[in-house]
Amino acid sequence: MTKPKSLPKTKSDFQHLAAELAAIGRDFYARGWLLGTSGNLSAVWQREPLRLAITASGLDKGHLLPGQILEVDAHQTVLRGKGKPSAEASLHLSVVRARAAGSVLHTHSVWSTVVSQKYPGEGDIEISGYEMLKGLEGIRSHDHTEHLPILENSQDMKDLSGRVTSLLDDHPAIHGFLIRGHGLYTWGATLAEAKRHVEILEFLAEVLGRSGAAVSRA
Amino acid sequence: MTKPKSLPKTKSDFQHLAAELAAIGRDFYARGWLLGTSGNLSAVWQREPLRLAITASGLDKGHLLPGQILEVDAHQTVLRGKGKPSAEASLHLSVVRARAAGSVLHTHSVWSTVVSQKYPGEGDIEISGYEMLKGLEGIRSHDHTEHLPILENSQDMKDLSGRVTSLLDDHPAIHGFLIRGHGLYTWGATLAEAKRHVEILEFLAEVLGRSGAAVSRA
Amino acid sequence: MTKPKSLPKTKSDFQHLAAELAAIGRDFYARGWLLGTSGNLSAVWQREPLRLAITASGLDKGHLLPGQILEVDAHQTVLRGKGKPSAEASLHLSVVRARAAGSVLHTHSVWSTVVSQKYPGEGDIEISGYEMLKGLEGIRSHDHTEHLPILENSQDMKDLSGRVTSLLDDHPAIHGFLIRGHGLYTWGATLAEAKRHVEILEFLAEVLGRSGAAVSRA
Amino acid sequence: MTKPKSLPKTKSDFQHLAAELAAIGRDFYARGWLLGTSGNLSAVWQREPLRLAITASGLDKGHLLPGQILEVDAHQTVLRGKGKPSAEASLHLSVVRARAAGSVLHTHSVWSTVVSQKYPGEGDIEISGYEMLKGLEGIRSHDHTEHLPILENSQDMKDLSGRVTSLLDDHPAIHGFLIRGHGLYTWGATLAEAKRHVEILEFLAEVLGRSGAAVSRA
Repeated sequence: MTKPKSLPKTKSDFQHLAAELAAIGRDFYARGWLLGTSGNLSAVWQREPLRLAITASGLDKGHLLPGQILEVDAHQTVLRGKGKPSAEASLHLSVVRARAAGSVLHTHSVWSTVVSQKYPGEGDIEISGYEMLKGLEGIRSHDHTEHLPILENSQDMKDLSGRVTSLLDDHPAIHGFLIRGHGLYTWGATLAEAKRHVEILEFLAEVLGRSGAAVSRA
Repeated sequence: MTKPKSLPKTKSDFQHLAAELAAIGRDFYARGWLLGTSGNLSAVWQREPLRLAITASGLDKGHLLPGQILEVDAHQTVLRGKGKPSAEASLHLSVVRARAAGSVLHTHSVWSTVVSQKYPGEGDIEISGYEMLKGLEGIRSHDHTEHLPILENSQDMKDLSGRVTSLLDDHPAIHGFLIRGHGLYTWGATLAEAKRHVEILEFLAEVLGRSGAAVSRA
Repeated sequence: MTKPKSLPKTKSDFQHLAAELAAIGRDFYARGWLLGTSGNLSAVWQREPLRLAITASGLDKGHLLPGQILEVDAHQTVLRGKGKPSAEASLHLSVVRARAAGSVLHTHSVWSTVVSQKYPGEGDIEISGYEMLKGLEGIRSHDHTEHLPILENSQDMKDLSGRVTSLLDDHPAIHGFLIRGHGLYTWGATLAEAKRHVEILEFLAEVLGRSGAAVSRA
Repeated sequence: MTKPKSLPKTKSDFQHLAAELAAIGRDFYARGWLLGTSGNLSAVWQREPLRLAITASGLDKGHLLPGQILEVDAHQTVLRGKGKPSAEASLHLSVVRARAAGSVLHTHSVWSTVVSQKYPGEGDIEISGYEMLKGLEGIRSHDHTEHLPILENSQDMKDLSGRVTSLLDDHPAIHGFLIRGHGLYTWGATLAEAKRHVEILEFLAEVLGRSGAAVSRA
């Protein structure tokens, strides 16, 4: 991963970070990746002690405003803003810890949902031969096999975030994962890198889906 | 359903509600869900006696303006605005009565039309295992089976609204239904909730359609 | 067809009509129906003697401006504006004469192209059972069979416009036709009606294509 | 090819050309053809000695600004602007030399990626019978067979640009080519012509993909 830039520290910097998250939310909504208040977006605002800027729960991402971005600590306590953080904030925190990520983005697109059902249970989608893979941090050639694991979904966030932590430990090279019937998680050292990873993995999910390579028709 | 907020009462509040309906109409048109003047949108403006804000018939939703939203009573008499209400206003009224809904939205998307033809006759599409289901009011887990009934279409609005009332009585848990070859009806306690339900059910129809699960190829 | 409103007569009215055509062109381009300078749009500016407002040939519809709309007479002579009219202006004139249409719109969408290849030769696509059919002028029920004829393509405009005239004579009830591998022609008494017909027939072509009903996989 | 207009020479003209490239980049990004910082766009700024305006490497095309367009010479040395040119600048230069092109545009769309995998190895996709083909420079009829060659991808730019040069020598009539798992290259005498060619070839790739004609399901 590229080395994270020093993180913003002032109040106006938080507003700036929140504005960037909100703009990405509106853009992804327009593309159909965050319909129906689905998905959540976060960026690390301070590393020590950990502070996360994260979307509040239940928001219409088509009208997402900077003021709707919360500041939470490592225990998901809200330090700034109104509303409660997404139930999935614990997954964001798991990814931030395991990858030292600067941003975690979670989308609910049609194609990532469709291809997340390729197998009856868990498994890895293997993606290889695409130039687009080079946009994933650290990948230098299309001649690479990217593993995109599929985790079973759960409403038990303790269970699910534990499995996410194990997955990231076991797969040090992955850039994202799918939750079955649910959507995509990806991350980056910076918000721009995480956004790029969303676009790339969503693109590849669509390519796999449209070419029939990752659609179960059983 | 979430408890409806107290409903707006002043003239400027009606304009506000009409502006929200018009914005949703333009947004859904851009997404391709209300092409060719199709679809209609309503919100309850007053509960006792019942007053509905509803799109006039035959409008291009791409240019929908607040002034094109009518106020009608329970007998579909126009109390405010020019034009006549949609022939389907009676279906909106049936839903409002049966569900105490604050808003009813009816879209004509490609995917809801495609999946509405899954069966030769009437039947329920069963949707389960999707995280997106949690966005439907009252649903707490992806591990839920949502029934999306398909009604046969009719031009006899008395017949059709009667069948809608029966359907809603018989299926107290549903959040929407399809009319065969026609489109989606959904509702919510508030306009925001109804909009969220449209996005979720249209998303799920597209997922089912693209994964081949709800397309009849007979 | 609804009775055409009296047609505009002053110079500023021509600008108004040209602005409406240009706005529809930019909108349809954004939707992907007029890519690569394809398609052409016209509206009757004067009935006796016939004057047509029509897009000049070879324009990028994504940047279509009112000043790029030509005025031509029944012989395709340019009376106003720079550039030459589309080679297909003769088809527009054939439709205007045969249907007393106030506007003719021709789009090149992916789905109308895909379904235009349903048969190896000419033939009619039959479309029935869709509520959206009611948006076609004069249709009152989904229980209607709309014929959407497919004509073989030709670069001989005299031949092709002759076949269009014959087709319209032989099929008095149709609202549009496809040219094989080429796209959709439809029309209306007014520009708004023609725009509505484009949206409806493109919607139905997409529904047929996506449900597999009109895609030849031979 | 249409004769290129005399090329711009002043500093403000460079800004104008850069602004046009940036606008096309943002437009193609919105259409999903340049996601994840993929793709690159160039236009000849001066013919003798050769100067190319080209996108810098690694940019988010959704926010592409004129100031992010570099001026490079025939050896890819940056003469103006910050950042480094794309590794694929050598392919742009190969096309400019072989075709005396005024602009080279390279997109990464889902459909051009899907159809680029039609064959296990290299091969030509043959496209015929489409009216849209007439938008390719010099083509006068739908009754034309356009060859769209597929090259194997490589990270060795010397190897790949050599193969591009050979391909263009061997296929004097082609208007573009695909790189397998990678995307589309096309060009034109002017930027407008190159943009038109992108739209036409992307349209045709989508038509072939959706009609099943160029999707390998092996």
